[in-house]
Amino acid sequence: MIKVTVWNEFKHEINNEVVRKVYPDGIHKAIADGIGTENFEVRTATLEEPEHGLTEEVLNNTDVLLWWGHMAHDQVDDAIVERVKQRVWNGMGLIVLHSGHFSKIFKTLMGTGCDLKWREAGEKERIWVVNPAHPIAAGLPEQFTIESEEMYGEHFDIPAPDELIFVSWFEGGEVFRSGCTFNRGQGKIFYFRPGHETYPTYYNANVLQVIKNGIRWAAPSGAAAPIRGNHEPLEPIKAK
Amino acid sequence: MIKVTVWNEFKHEINNEVVRKVYPDGIHKAIADGIGTENFEVRTATLEEPEHGLTEEVLNNTDVLLWWGHMAHDQVDDAIVERVKQRVWNGMGLIVLHSGHFSKIFKTLMGTGCDLKWREAGEKERIWVVNPAHPIAAGLPEQFTIESEEMYGEHFDIPAPDELIFVSWFEGGEVFRSGCTFNRGQGKIFYFRPGHETYPTYYNANVLQVIKNGIRWAAPSGAAAPIRGNHEPLEPIKAK
Amino acid sequence: MIKVTVWNEFKHEINNEVVRKVYPDGIHKAIADGIGTENFEVRTATLEEPEHGLTEEVLNNTDVLLWWGHMAHDQVDDAIVERVKQRVWNGMGLIVLHSGHFSKIFKTLMGTGCDLKWREAGEKERIWVVNPAHPIAAGLPEQFTIESEEMYGEHFDIPAPDELIFVSWFEGGEVFRSGCTFNRGQGKIFYFRPGHETYPTYYNANVLQVIKNGIRWAAPSGAAAPIRGNHEPLEPIKAK
Amino acid sequence: MIKVTVWNEFKHEINNEVVRKVYPDGIHKAIADGIGTENFEVRTATLEEPEHGLTEEVLNNTDVLLWWGHMAHDQVDDAIVERVKQRVWNGMGLIVLHSGHFSKIFKTLMGTGCDLKWREAGEKERIWVVNPAHPIAAGLPEQFTIESEEMYGEHFDIPAPDELIFVSWFEGGEVFRSGCTFNRGQGKIFYFRPGHETYPTYYNANVLQVIKNGIRWAAPSGAAAPIRGNHEPLEPIKAK
Repeated sequence: MIKVTVWNEFKHEINNEVVRKVYPDGIHKAIADGIGTENFEVRTATLEEPEHGLTEEVLNNTDVLLWWGHMAHDQVDDAIVERVKQRVWNGMGLIVLHSGHFSKIFKTLMGTGCDLKWREAGEKERIWVVNPAHPIAAGLPEQFTIESEEMYGEHFDIPAPDELIFVSWFEGGEVFRSGCTFNRGQGKIFYFRPGHETYPTYYNANVLQVIKNGIRWAAPSGAAAPIRGNHEPLEPIKAK
Repeated sequence: MIKVTVWNEFKHEINNEVVRKVYPDGIHKAIADGIGTENFEVRTATLEEPEHGLTEEVLNNTDVLLWWGHMAHDQVDDAIVERVKQRVWNGMGLIVLHSGHFSKIFKTLMGTGCDLKWREAGEKERIWVVNPAHPIAAGLPEQFTIESEEMYGEHFDIPAPDELIFVSWFEGGEVFRSGCTFNRGQGKIFYFRPGHETYPTYYNANVLQVIKNGIRWAAPSGAAAPIRGNHEPLEPIKAK
Repeated sequence: MIKVTVWNEFKHEINNEVVRKVYPDGIHKAIADGIGTENFEVRTATLEEPEHGLTEEVLNNTDVLLWWGHMAHDQVDDAIVERVKQRVWNGMGLIVLHSGHFSKIFKTLMGTGCDLKWREAGEKERIWVVNPAHPIAAGLPEQFTIESEEMYGEHFDIPAPDELIFVSWFEGGEVFRSGCTFNRGQGKIFYFRPGHETYPTYYNANVLQVIKNGIRWAAPSGAAAPIRGNHEPLEPIKAK
Repeated sequence: MIKVTVWNEFKHEINNEVVRKVYPDGIHKAIADGIGTENFEVRTATLEEPEHGLTEEVLNNTDVLLWWGHMAHDQVDDAIVERVKQRVWNGMGLIVLHSGHFSKIFKTLMGTGCDLKWREAGEKERIWVVNPAHPIAAGLPEQFTIESEEMYGEHFDIPAPDELIFVSWFEGGEVFRSGCTFNRGQGKIFYFRPGHETYPTYYNANVLQVIKNGIRWAAPSGAAAPIRGNHEPLEPIKAK
């Protein structure tokens, strides 16, 4: 069982009736329900909880953290961002969703501005698989369509991803690198584009499949923690 | 259960008493025994079998193929190489071991010469993890030592690997990119350096751990087979 | 001065009146004229010339080879393909244009099938820069449009490129990785998508800018030729 | 002419007699002299100058910034780090040398801890070229030796580099990814390992060759600045 924590700022759903109709219990709840409990032990956490619900205890019991945020990025406490970053560096997986591209945690892990083009026009998005060997594409058709989404367009200001899995086509003429992986320390990061709060994207079976695949991929799996600092020689060194 | 076929040219073990003492039943048997049957359904195949033991039926029932060859690369039939290549392109994992770097199948999948420096001096090799987040490094210490191995040195004439997991240090002054992954079509390829026939490398617990990790990583896991060729438009195209 | 050879199979322009109207002296001549002689010493070569115009002497005096082929890929002599491959491995740059994706030389250097989706519908293509730091994007706007082109769609069956520079959007709903770089040995390879024979693509200023940038990027520039084979130790090896 | 600014914290040379003997006018002066004025317009800047010598005016007139720091990383003003970061994002090249791996600017651009193993034992380092096609390897032999250097060992806590050019072998048994490139926004970054303050590394002809190559590679060369934010559609969007 992979331990998953779904974090959501949970603001739009409270403040905006349109969003509340789509996600009455919050985006976090829709995702938690959507990925199910067969393979995952799922909890949720939100901005207004103490320590944003991301206590040391919660993070230490999280294999993969999902992050959805948008209007309240700057209300996330720097100390919590630092805590999450350390956990990623030490092996916790992180899946950053949609507008999370502008979250403090994503920007600090990328080292770039993470800006992009955007447009709220309810337009059609086609998500194409460009890496059909990758486990995050498991079980997907070669492309799938979301009838109404916010547009995100290039240039997406991220480092060249370690692996590029999806590229989106938008009705209005733009393209976007929609599925990207990055390693940081012992941790694995997956960015996945779709998921604007006014559309029922997180009920889409293909979107949920990608998220489930992403969780399995991002779960801790690597080598022993590297040793840092002053290091005794393993072989004799000749005096000079 | 992942279906594994361990292929070995099985020549040195027959012709050379030194090698036979190390691997009395062949390198393939040592690897098959070493990876065990708990997670894998393992069979072996060798050069002298009909169709080198790699019939359509065998390959269609193989999730991951391991390849060890050295002195008889040019005795491998081109038609079998083509068959293996097609299976990799269609999703079968391939793990190329040590001197397999010069096999027809590896060279044709890389598009490079795959040459390198080498020396048989029984020298010490240290294998360092440079990607501690990668599942192929699972359960390993940050480095491990093989007391006596053949040296392989840079420049290793491969494409820049998609992921670099191990780098070797050699007593004689060389370095080598020892653990490299590549995707080709729907298939995943892992090259792993150690394994000269005169040393008991394939009894080393860390080496076996890497191979087991590699099999799990290389098992088919991607999207539906892409559709090629002439394609009807998904959206209307304006006449010009 | 970079020595450039523009190779073209030069068949469509002879056999097809529509193409001849667009490229009366052949695609090779349009490209040679378009890139100019200020920075480049340009010659052309075509399929019907002896040795396809790619003699040892020509290749030894070529820094960067451009390749356009389509209907006659299988008429290219294997020995010439081998000669070009060796020159790329030894440092000659190679720029593969459009339908050259299915040429023998590109397929053998990639190790993949190089297949893709296609459609001849004269549709609109938008080419977006996804790597604005790359010298092949020098002097370009963030996107440019070709009003009528053949569509190429994903999945494009290539290895993950070392660098992805352009992604295309097509009117009919597809996307494509349109500008990709790969190193092979000491040689640099750039694949660039547009250029169907029935459209005046090689007169487009942005397309010519990309080709000129590509030539500068692909020109030989690396280290001394690596040494291969049996190698004396650089450091003493302890007897065991 | 590429405009180069060589930045050095310039502390060890003042405080430590051993270092002063090696670099009497500072590491920055040795590098500035070593790269020469034939292709570069070189200035220097140091920590104790106002704004660390990195005023808006200086940075706006810098194509490539070199960075050497060690004992005083935390004395670098956060506002200046932010200013340098913005310039890199907007296209200025950055070459980070040796102990600069732990500088604020490198850590913030990488998004990782940037830690490593180290040892001051005056041991031998061999720097191997693993990417002989790359312009940063231009004119180098396939490997070169530095007789006495500080050791840096893996795991080096950086993102997987976009391009890996050099790997170091150390007498004491470690390896290190010594030459690494990264793009961030429109800017290019090159990390180069050697250069401990007590050794005459920056007088080594091969080391200077690498730095000169790095400057040429990192000079601004990309596309127009990308446009961000709310974006009008380029194509009509159907009402739904």
